[in-house]
Amino acid sequence: MSGTLYGVGVGPGDPDLITLKAHKVLQTAPVLAYPAPEVGESLARRIAAPHIPEGRREIIIRMPLDPKRFPDRTAYDKGAAEIAQALRGGQDVAVLCEGDPFFYGSFMYLFNRLTDEFPVQVVPGISSLLACACAARTPLVARNEVLSILPAPMAAEDLRARLSRTDAAAIIKLGRHAPKVFDVLRDLDLLDRAHYVAHATMPEQQVERLSNINPDEVPYFAMILVRKEGVGI
Amino acid sequence: MSGTLYGVGVGPGDPDLITLKAHKVLQTAPVLAYPAPEVGESLARRIAAPHIPEGRREIIIRMPLDPKRFPDRTAYDKGAAEIAQALRGGQDVAVLCEGDPFFYGSFMYLFNRLTDEFPVQVVPGISSLLACACAARTPLVARNEVLSILPAPMAAEDLRARLSRTDAAAIIKLGRHAPKVFDVLRDLDLLDRAHYVAHATMPEQQVERLSNINPDEVPYFAMILVRKEGVGI
Repeated sequence: MSGTLYGVGVGPGDPDLITLKAHKVLQTAPVLAYPAPEVGESLARRIAAPHIPEGRREIIIRMPLDPKRFPDRTAYDKGAAEIAQALRGGQDVAVLCEGDPFFYGSFMYLFNRLTDEFPVQVVPGISSLLACACAARTPLVARNEVLSILPAPMAAEDLRARLSRTDAAAIIKLGRHAPKVFDVLRDLDLLDRAHYVAHATMPEQQVERLSNINPDEVPYFAMILVRKEGVGI
Repeated sequence: MSGTLYGVGVGPGDPDLITLKAHKVLQTAPVLAYPAPEVGESLARRIAAPHIPEGRREIIIRMPLDPKRFPDRTAYDKGAAEIAQALRGGQDVAVLCEGDPFFYGSFMYLFNRLTDEFPVQVVPGISSLLACACAARTPLVARNEVLSILPAPMAAEDLRARLSRTDAAAIIKLGRHAPKVFDVLRDLDLLDRAHYVAHATMPEQQVERLSNINPDEVPYFAMILVRKEGVGI
């Protein structure tokens, strides 16, 4: 009998924002696996740390820092091979995923490599999208409105067109793309309806009006939420 | 000192898909509040039931079944007034919200009525969006793709245009709108890329290929996930 592969969403940062189900998996799986930068700590591992019992085997999937090599086929091949070995030996393996495994998550690359051979269970997690709206104390989307999740690297014209057509939006992965995003929001007269949230639910969480933010100093783990309508009724 | 209002996401259905944080709030808040139909059980209350200690006061906000009266200003006014009374008396009140409080949630109506007078904390929950992708074992969205959340009641032409422009989509609130949605997906040649999930993580969960579903018998709590790209690498 082979082990089961678990994709476990560990939530956005606050260790208490993990589900009871994910917590249970972490108490029982003898092997953990998670992505990490070439040097230094894994964010998913840090988030889950208070829930990880002593003595677990840990498979660290080191990812290259060079964005041209990302996502890195070789790193996932190697990680999947190590995980497969544990699964074949009958051990369950829990892959720690920041936020949710299937919402802009790298778990899909491991899932894709392992799902034909092994039983897989995917445990959802609180995505940063939901955490940011709660942190900013602003409804993300309501009633029959359309919500668009827009990665900031897209071209300014594309962003402008998509923002103009949607009722609500989350602009994610800001980082160095923030100046362009701020310009587009200004053009569309949406600055006053935009909320800025960085590092939601982490100790360094920042919730601000856009006018208080220097667009040249925005981290990757930041997003802007826009909703055109007021709450109503 | 007034009490604190908590908006608590209780997740999509499986009681284990509540966060540790939400669970803690439910252990301590002396008063619970939740929406319910005019007659019968509250879904949010049913999901949270295993986590609710004995002896809590419960404020039930009865909602009219008539969709023309929904959302119902009077019902929220009355509910907010009852909650405000408990908060003024120094008691914390936890409002139970299916899924996540700010993702198509009715919590916004209570939040809007109470946030100026009382301290509020919003605890995110696993939305059905995330739960459906995990249940269907399909990545929702990846890399720099655009994800569109599309409520099914919109016009067929609007749905067609939005689907044709997005990389990934979740079509929510299907119910009686399913035949129209199926037609649009067929026109766009997306049927084979669509996953159908109803009642995600509940005992009656259904995950199917679209070709196995009769569009005339689709419940409201069902959605279709579409992603145009394969997993890649």
